[in-house]
Amino acid sequence: MKSLVMERKMELSLRDFPEISKAEETLGPRDVRIKLHTVGICGSDVHYYTHGKVGPFEVTEPMILGHEAAGTVIEVGSAVSHLAIGDRVCMEPGIPDPTSKAARLGMYNIDPAVRFWATPPVHGVLRPTCVHPADFTFKLPDSVSMAEGAMVEPLAVGVHAATKARVKPGDVAVVLGAGPIGLVTALSALAAGCARVFVTDLADKKLEIAASLSPAITPVHATKQDLTATVMAATENWGADIVFEATGAPKAAAGVFQPLAPGGCVVFIGGQADPIAYDAGAAMVREARVENIFRYAHVFPRCVGMLASGAIDVKPLITRKFDFNDSVRAFEIAASAPVADVKMQIELPQ
Amino acid sequence: MKSLVMERKMELSLRDFPEISKAEETLGPRDVRIKLHTVGICGSDVHYYTHGKVGPFEVTEPMILGHEAAGTVIEVGSAVSHLAIGDRVCMEPGIPDPTSKAARLGMYNIDPAVRFWATPPVHGVLRPTCVHPADFTFKLPDSVSMAEGAMVEPLAVGVHAATKARVKPGDVAVVLGAGPIGLVTALSALAAGCARVFVTDLADKKLEIAASLSPAITPVHATKQDLTATVMAATENWGADIVFEATGAPKAAAGVFQPLAPGGCVVFIGGQADPIAYDAGAAMVREARVENIFRYAHVFPRCVGMLASGAIDVKPLITRKFDFNDSVRAFEIAASAPVADVKMQIELPQ
Amino acid sequence: MKSLVMERKMELSLRDFPEISKAEETLGPRDVRIKLHTVGICGSDVHYYTHGKVGPFEVTEPMILGHEAAGTVIEVGSAVSHLAIGDRVCMEPGIPDPTSKAARLGMYNIDPAVRFWATPPVHGVLRPTCVHPADFTFKLPDSVSMAEGAMVEPLAVGVHAATKARVKPGDVAVVLGAGPIGLVTALSALAAGCARVFVTDLADKKLEIAASLSPAITPVHATKQDLTATVMAATENWGADIVFEATGAPKAAAGVFQPLAPGGCVVFIGGQADPIAYDAGAAMVREARVENIFRYAHVFPRCVGMLASGAIDVKPLITRKFDFNDSVRAFEIAASAPVADVKMQIELPQ
Amino acid sequence: MKSLVMERKMELSLRDFPEISKAEETLGPRDVRIKLHTVGICGSDVHYYTHGKVGPFEVTEPMILGHEAAGTVIEVGSAVSHLAIGDRVCMEPGIPDPTSKAARLGMYNIDPAVRFWATPPVHGVLRPTCVHPADFTFKLPDSVSMAEGAMVEPLAVGVHAATKARVKPGDVAVVLGAGPIGLVTALSALAAGCARVFVTDLADKKLEIAASLSPAITPVHATKQDLTATVMAATENWGADIVFEATGAPKAAAGVFQPLAPGGCVVFIGGQADPIAYDAGAAMVREARVENIFRYAHVFPRCVGMLASGAIDVKPLITRKFDFNDSVRAFEIAASAPVADVKMQIELPQ
Repeated sequence: MKSLVMERKMELSLRDFPEISKAEETLGPRDVRIKLHTVGICGSDVHYYTHGKVGPFEVTEPMILGHEAAGTVIEVGSAVSHLAIGDRVCMEPGIPDPTSKAARLGMYNIDPAVRFWATPPVHGVLRPTCVHPADFTFKLPDSVSMAEGAMVEPLAVGVHAATKARVKPGDVAVVLGAGPIGLVTALSALAAGCARVFVTDLADKKLEIAASLSPAITPVHATKQDLTATVMAATENWGADIVFEATGAPKAAAGVFQPLAPGGCVVFIGGQADPIAYDAGAAMVREARVENIFRYAHVFPRCVGMLASGAIDVKPLITRKFDFNDSVRAFEIAASAPVADVKMQIELPQ
Repeated sequence: MKSLVMERKMELSLRDFPEISKAEETLGPRDVRIKLHTVGICGSDVHYYTHGKVGPFEVTEPMILGHEAAGTVIEVGSAVSHLAIGDRVCMEPGIPDPTSKAARLGMYNIDPAVRFWATPPVHGVLRPTCVHPADFTFKLPDSVSMAEGAMVEPLAVGVHAATKARVKPGDVAVVLGAGPIGLVTALSALAAGCARVFVTDLADKKLEIAASLSPAITPVHATKQDLTATVMAATENWGADIVFEATGAPKAAAGVFQPLAPGGCVVFIGGQADPIAYDAGAAMVREARVENIFRYAHVFPRCVGMLASGAIDVKPLITRKFDFNDSVRAFEIAASAPVADVKMQIELPQ
Repeated sequence: MKSLVMERKMELSLRDFPEISKAEETLGPRDVRIKLHTVGICGSDVHYYTHGKVGPFEVTEPMILGHEAAGTVIEVGSAVSHLAIGDRVCMEPGIPDPTSKAARLGMYNIDPAVRFWATPPVHGVLRPTCVHPADFTFKLPDSVSMAEGAMVEPLAVGVHAATKARVKPGDVAVVLGAGPIGLVTALSALAAGCARVFVTDLADKKLEIAASLSPAITPVHATKQDLTATVMAATENWGADIVFEATGAPKAAAGVFQPLAPGGCVVFIGGQADPIAYDAGAAMVREARVENIFRYAHVFPRCVGMLASGAIDVKPLITRKFDFNDSVRAFEIAASAPVADVKMQIELPQ
Repeated sequence: MKSLVMERKMELSLRDFPEISKAEETLGPRDVRIKLHTVGICGSDVHYYTHGKVGPFEVTEPMILGHEAAGTVIEVGSAVSHLAIGDRVCMEPGIPDPTSKAARLGMYNIDPAVRFWATPPVHGVLRPTCVHPADFTFKLPDSVSMAEGAMVEPLAVGVHAATKARVKPGDVAVVLGAGPIGLVTALSALAAGCARVFVTDLADKKLEIAASLSPAITPVHATKQDLTATVMAATENWGADIVFEATGAPKAAAGVFQPLAPGGCVVFIGGQADPIAYDAGAAMVREARVENIFRYAHVFPRCVGMLASGAIDVKPLITRKFDFNDSVRAFEIAASAPVADVKMQIELPQ
């Protein structure tokens, strides 16, 4: 019963991890036990591996990686009624305290007590099975594959961003960054009602992938092209209704208001290590609204619904799959940041 | 230079109408002159023809019908910069007073002083040319046909309804009524982020058309099937996030809260001749929000953008076209309410 | 250790009630035990007494009445950190399931599983002590009396209504009904930013009380005066931004849109036994937004804060106090609907 | 017929200004002519005087100062119906193009074509009379003095900020800065529903004035006290629901998220010459919403209503008055930034 364990910075091993088996012995009345099937590799997983930490979270003990997951229910707690053994499911990796003030107000994602997979000291799910609260476990309909199910977690970030932006039908949006989060945000923005989305990046290959997702996506090279001029030309000099910042790069963040329309909205998705240069004057003359998002809340079942109905198709984003036995190598490849890959996934033995 | 004139109730003629030519002689600095190309037949046009009035608006003098229109700019006022001769355009049929209080607040559609085509005493545009404010005239890109352009007006009702509903990505909606407005509302709801839309009607043929528009649309027969049970089964007993009332039928309006989820939204689109029976108790235990909409505001360019990007496809709704010379017959057919037709359009000689 | 027990319709007794003592023996880790001090008499308490039921809730077993309460903490559960023995507190009478879908979304008041004091089969708190979740128990600062603390429950309805209305500073509001709920709504509307509030009623005495609360409140007799004409004259013919319906009377509910401004909001607070006549045409031409509210959520600490800061003064609403020993007589008086009384309260022995 | 003319940087004169008399000869049908009575001195007036420019606006020709004004209607255009000769009025100093896209959307304040008093090349109103659009001229009721009327302009900034913040009843707010704008914002926040407002400044005298305005205002010295600790202690460690930045100081702007509650809102009111250091990480973990405001829109009549009803009292902010003949000296005093003054006003001869 092997797990993918990050022993320390730059050292992974696929090995037994007895502590986790012990912790999982108990199944609470509101829990389910899940056999993992597919787990995607997230940038934060890779960052833990290469840097030993993400922001304030430092890995000081061996930790199992992985938090983008789908699997099959193999045991059901006594108080669970909406799931049954054999159900194919995806799981929300953050478990809040339902009685915290933030959770009671409906913002459980910003409850400081959230326990989140693969964030020290909580283990991830690149392991055979896990126990999870049924409330945060969502059934996949037959038409949604395990691979798509494991895409719900990153997709949820984009859908949450589009929800917070309060997209109006026919809006024009800009997404800064064509990495996995930028691309799910572009897809989410379109699904949420945008008529057109301009996506920027520095890598031609990533822009090519972005453009292939929809004729409503226009790729714009961040340095070779003038984003603001492009957007203004396409909008009778009005600007974009929404600008999503999904690069985490200070330079991109500093320019968010330039292509923005009067009364428009900026959404900061990408994490920033340091304070960014905020152009208060440009924000002011547009009376910009700025939303800052942290993960997601309440959107997993919505994402499943949109995958099922065809409103969003994430399959083109899954560019490579690995067998669990090759997962160390998968991380080594992911750490090399291959420009042609959007999302790499690992399949566990069934 | 003939126009389609409603002489009085149940009497139409295709004839010269000198008064209108006179009124059109002057082109203001902010106006454009347009050669009409395609005009759709709206239920209100037909209702004027068959009943002589719509609500409080009675036709007491001969009036030209038609307000769903697209055409070509043939003359441009001196102060107009965003349009040029030869531009293919669609037109918003209501012209508000920009200095009215409602207009200044951004709600020009509920300015009581709005002058609206084919609403007495204002003439419609089933005529060769018209003069219109450039601010309410919108250029069609090459990829949007004249027929689609003439669909922008009814589509705008659906898009406005979806905007007011504040659809969140992944919402489940119900649309009561599969007439032209019900169908554009269903398409708008999907474009605005709904994952699924249940559409009801009494006519099987209309439900068939609804279902053909998207796999995300589920037809529900209003009397043969149990809408609430269907919605509850599809939503883990939670209900629909939004219910759009697009029938104008008192019975349908009385039941809007039954399939609605806690915290959900009802949008009344369909006009009602008499007060409806509002189930205040059912609305209360759900804390329902109810929006009442009147035509649309600010959505024409958004609709054009969504037609251009492919976010919405209205072509399947255009079920029959007539030559302008056959327009009296077109109205006679429309008055018979053919169940297999969604939208009938008239093409003017070019 | 006596309680005020409603034995059956029209029969109250002040007597020992052993069952409740038993149920209260256990104090959970997140609970507090409270010695009751002041309990207000609500219209629903009186309605249970005089009719044996309220809507679908029928009293079939003896039930203790009372749910507007303040008291003193006398025991604290092991996991409670924000309350201590001796704290003066008020209590929110509805206890939701924090893991229900509605509660997780932040709308715990519309969780169907809410257990609410003095709503069969749940007992009220006209009794010496009670055990209550600490999360729904709120400390009163020194400047807020027990009598004011027991007013937080009805005040919460008004504050929730004003919150849902999304009052903008300087709005003009109408409150239909000058009973206790109408008056707390008028005070809440002013505290929430309204510049003026018009309050209607049929009883001159109630209008007099309303007018005495603030110079910004204008009383309007519901039949002797023309509300719409009065509002229009005061608003340059624009209308009221918000109309709160707090009578529960079908006739009042049918007229809510008449004094409403374009783009205005109607809030239905008063419960209605039957469907009301909803003037869909009047709602449509104004594009009215309608909010339907059910009790309240998240507002108790806000109400305490506003009482403490002086933003709202409920003291003038407390028109009569009774000793607990006289509580049967208090209910008999309340059942006679004395027109000069707003809120009657009962003080328990300390 | 003298005007207060800024000849150039640091040079004012009270002299005839024939050009303005000429421009005012014509009264349009929708205009009124106003005899000025009271004009407040704004920080921007002083800044033009001392620096010759404000941001990108440079005074290159002699310009009349003053834009916070009240007066009496002395002539009425033919199409004006809501004002009459003799009406006491206040005036909104920015005149937008009602047909601009921003204006049509209801955001006329961010129409780049706005013409604003005392902003080059538009003259201000420290002069005997002016001609102004009736739509931007608001009648003062008898209970509102000319001095209060001239306070509507700065008050409008605070009310607009509180409106954009979407204050909920019982919110706790922080206002950074106790200058005139900080103080009107604090008053507006209270009027809009805040239960408590913490106001910071570096000047003890200004904090003293702030504290004197309401018992619900708590002064906090920006360097001698720890704002975040103070707010956290007062809110059970939750934080302020809203933080208004009204200093324009980069250091204050950099700290806006520290005292902010999860899900809270920051409003940037104060102009900033350079980009500010935006703590994206702190904004993210709170999912902060940030609003950036520019002047105001639609709030003048609301401010008048709140002054009339007593919801807001600006009289304590008017700390000094000057006769028009002393207006040069008034500016010299204002330029010395007297710490005990909030608002200085100039009264014109009647």
